[in-house]
Amino acid sequence: MPATGAERDAMRRALSLALNGPRGVNPQVGAVFLSATGEPIAEGWHHGAGTPHAEVDALSRLTPDAAQGSTAVVTLEPCNHVGRTGPCAQALIDAGIARVVYALDDPGEASSGGADRLRAAGVDVVAGEQADAARAQLSDWLAVQRLGRPHVTVKWAQSLDGRAAASDGSSQWITGPAARTDVHRRRALADAIVVGTGTLLADDPSLTARDGDTLLPHQPVPVVIGSRPTPADAAVHRHPHSPLFYPTHDLAAVLDDLREQGVQRVFVEGGPTLASAFVTAGLADTVLAYIAPVLLGGERMALTDLGVASIADARRLTIDEWLPLGDDLLAVAHPSALEEGS
Amino acid sequence: MPATGAERDAMRRALSLALNGPRGVNPQVGAVFLSATGEPIAEGWHHGAGTPHAEVDALSRLTPDAAQGSTAVVTLEPCNHVGRTGPCAQALIDAGIARVVYALDDPGEASSGGADRLRAAGVDVVAGEQADAARAQLSDWLAVQRLGRPHVTVKWAQSLDGRAAASDGSSQWITGPAARTDVHRRRALADAIVVGTGTLLADDPSLTARDGDTLLPHQPVPVVIGSRPTPADAAVHRHPHSPLFYPTHDLAAVLDDLREQGVQRVFVEGGPTLASAFVTAGLADTVLAYIAPVLLGGERMALTDLGVASIADARRLTIDEWLPLGDDLLAVAHPSALEEGS
Repeated sequence: MPATGAERDAMRRALSLALNGPRGVNPQVGAVFLSATGEPIAEGWHHGAGTPHAEVDALSRLTPDAAQGSTAVVTLEPCNHVGRTGPCAQALIDAGIARVVYALDDPGEASSGGADRLRAAGVDVVAGEQADAARAQLSDWLAVQRLGRPHVTVKWAQSLDGRAAASDGSSQWITGPAARTDVHRRRALADAIVVGTGTLLADDPSLTARDGDTLLPHQPVPVVIGSRPTPADAAVHRHPHSPLFYPTHDLAAVLDDLREQGVQRVFVEGGPTLASAFVTAGLADTVLAYIAPVLLGGERMALTDLGVASIADARRLTIDEWLPLGDDLLAVAHPSALEEGS
Repeated sequence: MPATGAERDAMRRALSLALNGPRGVNPQVGAVFLSATGEPIAEGWHHGAGTPHAEVDALSRLTPDAAQGSTAVVTLEPCNHVGRTGPCAQALIDAGIARVVYALDDPGEASSGGADRLRAAGVDVVAGEQADAARAQLSDWLAVQRLGRPHVTVKWAQSLDGRAAASDGSSQWITGPAARTDVHRRRALADAIVVGTGTLLADDPSLTARDGDTLLPHQPVPVVIGSRPTPADAAVHRHPHSPLFYPTHDLAAVLDDLREQGVQRVFVEGGPTLASAFVTAGLADTVLAYIAPVLLGGERMALTDLGVASIADARRLTIDEWLPLGDDLLAVAHPSALEEGS
C-alpha cells in the first residue's frame, strides 16, 4: 500500500523536524510516528553524532503499548549497522512497529539494508516517499558520502588574461561589487573557508561572510593551511569561529580531518598556490572563476602550475553557468572527467 | 525642401552603386543624377584612389545641357579639397547643378566644407538623407579616418586560466569547432591578418579564412611582423594574396603602411608576444578572447607582459558581449578609456 495522506503529511513534518539537528558528520534526519488510525503520536530528530537516530529518538517518547502496531515515518532509511547507537531497523522490529515509510535510501555501505531487514521481519515498508525533498535537504551530506571527503569549491578572481594581481602585487578591486557580494553569499553556504598562509600574510583576510559590514547569520570556520606562523594580531583571530591551523601540504589529510569535524562543504579562497594545489590534486569539485574585464599581463597568475605537460593532460571543465555579475563574469564549472573521487 | 520620393529612391540606388567600388584608402561612394523632373539621367561611383569621385564620374556621363539644373544625389558630402581629382563641390557648381542631396558629412578636415561651398554658390543642399545606411556602409573607412590608422582587432584563444598552450607548447583544439568557425568568419571581415614570425615558425598557419576546407570569398592579406625569415615552403606563401613582410617592431609604422595600401581592418592573430605588443601600445581597438573551459597552468601565457606595474594601470576593458560558442566563451571587448587614438 502506498503512503497515505496522513503519512505524506507526517513526512513533510519529519523533513521540517530534521533541520532541528546539526549539520555535521551525521545526516539531518527527522521522524514522526503515527498510530494505527493515522494520528501523530511522537516526533524526533537526530541531535548529532553519538546521540540516538531520529526514529529511536521518537520511539523513546512512546510507551511500548503505543509503539506496538504504529507506523514510523522517517526521512532516511532506518540504519542496519551497529554504530554508536545500534541498528535502528532492529529497534523498530523489537518495538513491534507495523509499518515504516521513509524518503531516502541509506547510501552507506555499512549502514544500508535496513529496509530489507524490516521486510524480512514482516514490517510493511514504503521507500521513496518525498525522496527528492530529502535528497535536496541532505545534498551536502550525500556529497560527502559519495566523495569520501567534504565537497570542495575552489574560488579565485582573475583578470581576463588570468592574472590575480599586477606586477607589484596590487589586486584590490579587480572585480566589482556584484562579484564580491556573490562571493560572500557563497562563503555563507560553506562550513569551512580555507586560505594558505601566503594569502593570510599578504592580505590579512577576515574570512567572514558579510553583507556590506554586517556578518551573515552562518559563518564558515576559518582554516589556514601552510607552515608559516600566523601573526597574533591577524584578522582571522577575530573571526566568530576559532580558526583551525594545518601546518601541512597534505590536502587530503586536511580534508579527512575537516570531515571528522563535521565539515561538509569547503570553500578554498586562495591564493594561487593553494588553489593550484587543490586543482592539481583533483580535489576541486566546483571551480568558481570570477573574471574581471581587465588585462594585467605579467607574472602574478591566478593559477600557477597544474602539472599539465601536454594539451592532452589539460584539466577539462564542464561549465555549469557563465554568470554575468555587473561588469564581471563568473564561470561556475566542475571537472569534466570523473575526477571527483580520485 | 526635404528629399523627394525620387531622391530617396536615387539615394538607395547610389548606396548600391557605391559597393561597385573597391574598399581601400578612399571611401566607397555612389551617385545618381536626376533631371529637373526627377528622372534618373546618370549614375556613377568611385573606382578607387586616383580616379574621379562618384559625383564627377556620374557627371562625366552627362552633356553640359543635361547637367545644367539637375540634382546630384550622392552618398557622401561632395569634397572641398584639391586632391588628385579637384574639389567635387566646385565641379558641381561649374556644371550648373541646381540641387545636391547627400547622406553623410565628409569627416575629413581637409576635404569637408563642400556643402557650405555649394550653398554659398546658391545650390540647394539637403544633408543627411539615409545617413545611417551610409554610415554603416562606410563604418570601416570612417574608423580609419577617426583613428588615423586601420582598426585593429586582437584575437587570442586561451584556457580559462589565461594560457595559450600547455608546457610542451601543444595547443591544438584548446577551443572547439564553434569558436574556430567564428574566428574564420571574423577573419573574412578583415582586410589584413597579422602574425608574428614566432607564430609563423611554430604553427605554419595558412592565414586564410575558411568554411571547413573551403576558402571564404573574401580573404584578408597575410601580414608577417618580425625579423626572423619566413621559410620558403611556409604555408603563407600559398595564400591567395601575396604576404606582406615587415621586419620591424614598430607597429605604428606597420599600420601606417597598411593604411596606405588601403587596409581598413586588421586582424591580429598572434601569438602572445605580438598580441601583447599591440595591447601595450594602445593599438587594440577590439579584443577577442576565446576562452576554453580548461585549466592548463604553467608558463605559456596567452598574453605576456603589458607594462602594467600596479592595479591602477590595469588595462580596463568594456565588454561588448560575452558570447557562448559551444563549450567556449568569446569575450568581445574594447578599451574602456579613450585609448583608441593614443
